[in-house]
Amino acid sequence: MKGRQMKHGGDIYDHRVELDFSVNLNPLGTPDAILRSVERAKDRIGVYPEYTQDSLRNLIADTLGIRPDSVYAGSGASELLMAAVRALQPKKALLFEPAFSGYAHALTAAGCEMIRHPLFEENGFVLTEEDLAALTEDIDVVFVCDPANPTGLNIGDDVLLKLLERAEQNHAAVILDESFFPLSDQAYDRGNGKQAGDRAEARLKRFSHLIILRSLTKLFAMPGIRAGYAIASPELIAAVAMQLPEWNLSVVAEEAIRAGMEVLKETDFAKSSIAMIQRERSYLADRLKECGLTVYESHAPYLLFTGPQNLYEALLARGILIRDCSDFYGLEKGYFRVAVRDRTDNEKLAEALRMILCR
Amino acid sequence: MKGRQMKHGGDIYDHRVELDFSVNLNPLGTPDAILRSVERAKDRIGVYPEYTQDSLRNLIADTLGIRPDSVYAGSGASELLMAAVRALQPKKALLFEPAFSGYAHALTAAGCEMIRHPLFEENGFVLTEEDLAALTEDIDVVFVCDPANPTGLNIGDDVLLKLLERAEQNHAAVILDESFFPLSDQAYDRGNGKQAGDRAEARLKRFSHLIILRSLTKLFAMPGIRAGYAIASPELIAAVAMQLPEWNLSVVAEEAIRAGMEVLKETDFAKSSIAMIQRERSYLADRLKECGLTVYESHAPYLLFTGPQNLYEALLARGILIRDCSDFYGLEKGYFRVAVRDRTDNEKLAEALRMILCR
Repeated sequence: MKGRQMKHGGDIYDHRVELDFSVNLNPLGTPDAILRSVERAKDRIGVYPEYTQDSLRNLIADTLGIRPDSVYAGSGASELLMAAVRALQPKKALLFEPAFSGYAHALTAAGCEMIRHPLFEENGFVLTEEDLAALTEDIDVVFVCDPANPTGLNIGDDVLLKLLERAEQNHAAVILDESFFPLSDQAYDRGNGKQAGDRAEARLKRFSHLIILRSLTKLFAMPGIRAGYAIASPELIAAVAMQLPEWNLSVVAEEAIRAGMEVLKETDFAKSSIAMIQRERSYLADRLKECGLTVYESHAPYLLFTGPQNLYEALLARGILIRDCSDFYGLEKGYFRVAVRDRTDNEKLAEALRMILCR
Repeated sequence: MKGRQMKHGGDIYDHRVELDFSVNLNPLGTPDAILRSVERAKDRIGVYPEYTQDSLRNLIADTLGIRPDSVYAGSGASELLMAAVRALQPKKALLFEPAFSGYAHALTAAGCEMIRHPLFEENGFVLTEEDLAALTEDIDVVFVCDPANPTGLNIGDDVLLKLLERAEQNHAAVILDESFFPLSDQAYDRGNGKQAGDRAEARLKRFSHLIILRSLTKLFAMPGIRAGYAIASPELIAAVAMQLPEWNLSVVAEEAIRAGMEVLKETDFAKSSIAMIQRERSYLADRLKECGLTVYESHAPYLLFTGPQNLYEALLARGILIRDCSDFYGLEKGYFRVAVRDRTDNEKLAEALRMILCR
């Protein structure tokens, strides 16, 4: 279908896949509490979801330590992304590339011009103060992803602060995509989901044109449910909500979000997840390097690396799907991304790579 | 929240409700096959939904007897409605009032001017050829609902044909909302879902700027899942899909739609539903009339009527929620809508009305 080609991981429907390293989900898997919430939702499919999400927003706000009118839930960050763009009505957007192609999807739909600023490979695609010069006065909205996708680098606090300040000066809005943030190193340093929320609250107080997007897909390994939330000023949240379909959230998403907030409040799930990711990421990076691959530094549950151009096909022939990153703007054939999975799966990938590369 | 006030039935979260007559769902209830599909979906929440819905669209198309590239599924008709408006980018829209307020929600979000043409109460709010004069050359899109909401009248074939012809002449698009169509008298006359689809196919061949919206919420009594589909030319469907979030459908909606299509193909569920609705609608209308209420003719699973202004509150005090229609454009205090439910529930409503009105 024109304009709807798959440019993402997870394309398990067109391939025979035994191990999917192309999508980056929490390697701890879906918490039991989420699975149980689907059971509860089953008893509610005969009723409409809550129209303005009042009780749900209270719960999320309470968990994160923010104001209820500063949050709105959506059927995945992808829905909120489109609504955010519609709410802002930008004419010109700035993207730091390579970046998640979903931004281009939302901006193209809204007929917004895109300025694609390339980050330097020599710097490992890290966003630096120098790059902020691209945020010129004609830019209406700038997209930043923390941690970046596909590189996995958390944005430095100082750079992000400077970006927000420059955007404020230029009257540009900032869409800060924190889809993977709760599974990244910075979230760990700062503690649990609540403290990450506090950081959002402090930023919102200072920057009025900031919209933060969070996915629950990655944290709770539940891409099939479609659930995420946006954090912004009450004014911006109201504008985003206006751009969402009525009853945008299924009762399944409602129940899953409720269950997820309980998990964050009452368990160490987020912390344990990051500990596992850090351990496994280090293990997997070492194995990749042993095979002679160039691996980029990452603070996220995935690794970007370069290798032989036919690696995607060679792994797929062994039932392993990885992300061929050649369609990312600014990358080319030979760039790949793999999720960090559990030890058993990571060993299987390492073994397959050895068979292909180290012979 | 500004701009997101509830203007619909189903507001069970703010009220103590034992019987909800404010939402119009199939009184036969949710088929077991749909409930079982939620179980199947539970095993798939760890994977992303199908990106371009290929196999799902094949199944819907096969069931309805249309082309797969003429259909796209959404998280409820409400999501597709917004995407349709975004795809068409209208500057001026024509609404025949009273109408479902969701159209205004979508048009307001898109910044589109609305021309609200009032239908005459004297005619029972029926759409007539005379009304088509409102479809002037400056109109970019016209909304029609078959059957109408809140009146419940199917649109006459001749009037709809003239409207489509006039729209084609004026280069205006038509959004035909058939959310309740599969539960209306015309669907029964024409047979099952497949034949209704054939009608769509014939219309699409003749009118290139037609988008038909169907909800699965009403037919299968599953508002919590959020599922519906749009039918249009392959070009318009591609444009609508471009305006939808990536992975717009949850795996729960995917599985429920699959199950629903099987139900339509292999059972008499749709036919039995309409037979029940016709029987119960007639029963309920008689009871309302016995209480001195003025009841409008309906071909749908709901009835519009007028009564004492405090009727909503009086019924709510007895745990029964009905739809106060005073917020519909063109209606006023004293207009109400009730769903057609099963005999037990309808008798309870009749009894409550007798207690309130016939003493």
